Amino acid sequence: MSRESIQRSIVEIVASSGIGGLSVRAVAARSGVAIGTVQHHFPSRSAMITAAMSVVEETAGALEADLPEAPADRLESLVSLLVPSSPDSIPARVWLAFAAQAAVDADVAAQYRRVWGRVHRGLAELFAQARPERSWAAAQDCASEILALADGLAVSVLIEPARVPADSARERARRRLHELLA
Amino acid sequence: MSRESIQRSIVEIVASSGIGGLSVRAVAARSGVAIGTVQHHFPSRSAMITAAMSVVEETAGALEADLPEAPADRLESLVSLLVPSSPDSIPARVWLAFAAQAAVDADVAAQYRRVWGRVHRGLAELFAQARPERSWAAAQDCASEILALADGLAVSVLIEPARVPADSARERARRRLHELLA
Repeated sequence: MSRESIQRSIVEIVASSGIGGLSVRAVAARSGVAIGTVQHHFPSRSAMITAAMSVVEETAGALEADLPEAPADRLESLVSLLVPSSPDSIPARVWLAFAAQAAVDADVAAQYRRVWGRVHRGLAELFAQARPERSWAAAQDCASEILALADGLAVSVLIEPARVPADSARERARRRLHELLA
Repeated sequence: MSRESIQRSIVEIVASSGIGGLSVRAVAARSGVAIGTVQHHFPSRSAMITAAMSVVEETAGALEADLPEAPADRLESLVSLLVPSSPDSIPARVWLAFAAQAAVDADVAAQYRRVWGRVHRGLAELFAQARPERSWAAAQDCASEILALADGLAVSVLIEPARVPADSARERARRRLHELLA
């Protein structure tokens, strides 16, 4: 059983049961391997939590992907990545579990800040490229607002899909992005 | 030891350690009472979780308070309640723990939807009163956006106060509110 498939089990457990459901025993059971095998690859709870966040880091990675797109189009793609398309979205569910854990755990908070700081910087650079006549402070400001709006919409889509359906959340974020670029 | 002071301990534990830190034992230790006393007032884990959310429900309660203010001013006060003024904000920390738990627990999700649905409706009514010439759908739309933005800013203030200081988060929410009312 490879490290990757154990990591996949970790991500699935966090998405379905939260950080509270994460234990060596639960990961071993879901992966169908011995507890010792899990411990070999993920020697601590904190190593498991870090592994779960990897699925969220892919959003940050998308910022650096060499997409052949104009900055405004890339911003639109990224906003679509940040607002989940379904309440079952695994990255969004892991992100929310991770955010709640970050509020009470300094190590997780440091990791959260690293990933979300990178997403924010990437968004700010795209705003600056899309509207080079504006200040860097203005670009950072736009990035902060759209990232916060996407995060808040993600919480709504996950927990209140009847009040905030995924499609309307994505449309609202897109509309606000266009206003910020106008 | 009154029910209220045990409830205060529950709120403090969720704010400092998350839902994961909540146990009859931890609540008894923090309140300085016997485990049986905690169990008498809060016979289940779910009763404790419900009690913790009470501190967030006060935000919903503020919507109905008979404040002698114009709708636009009330909206501004409510947005100030929703975006925490400090990373130590107890209601904001309980809200985030509660949101993460709602994503993995149907009973908590139902309670979350009840409270946040009420906040959303209250905000929409204030938007409708402030701008009676617009449609109810438009008022609901404005309420959804400002509530999602406030929630996303709350996550940032709690976990990334260096990137998103509380003052600038509150200012950003206020500015957006004014645009939505313009």
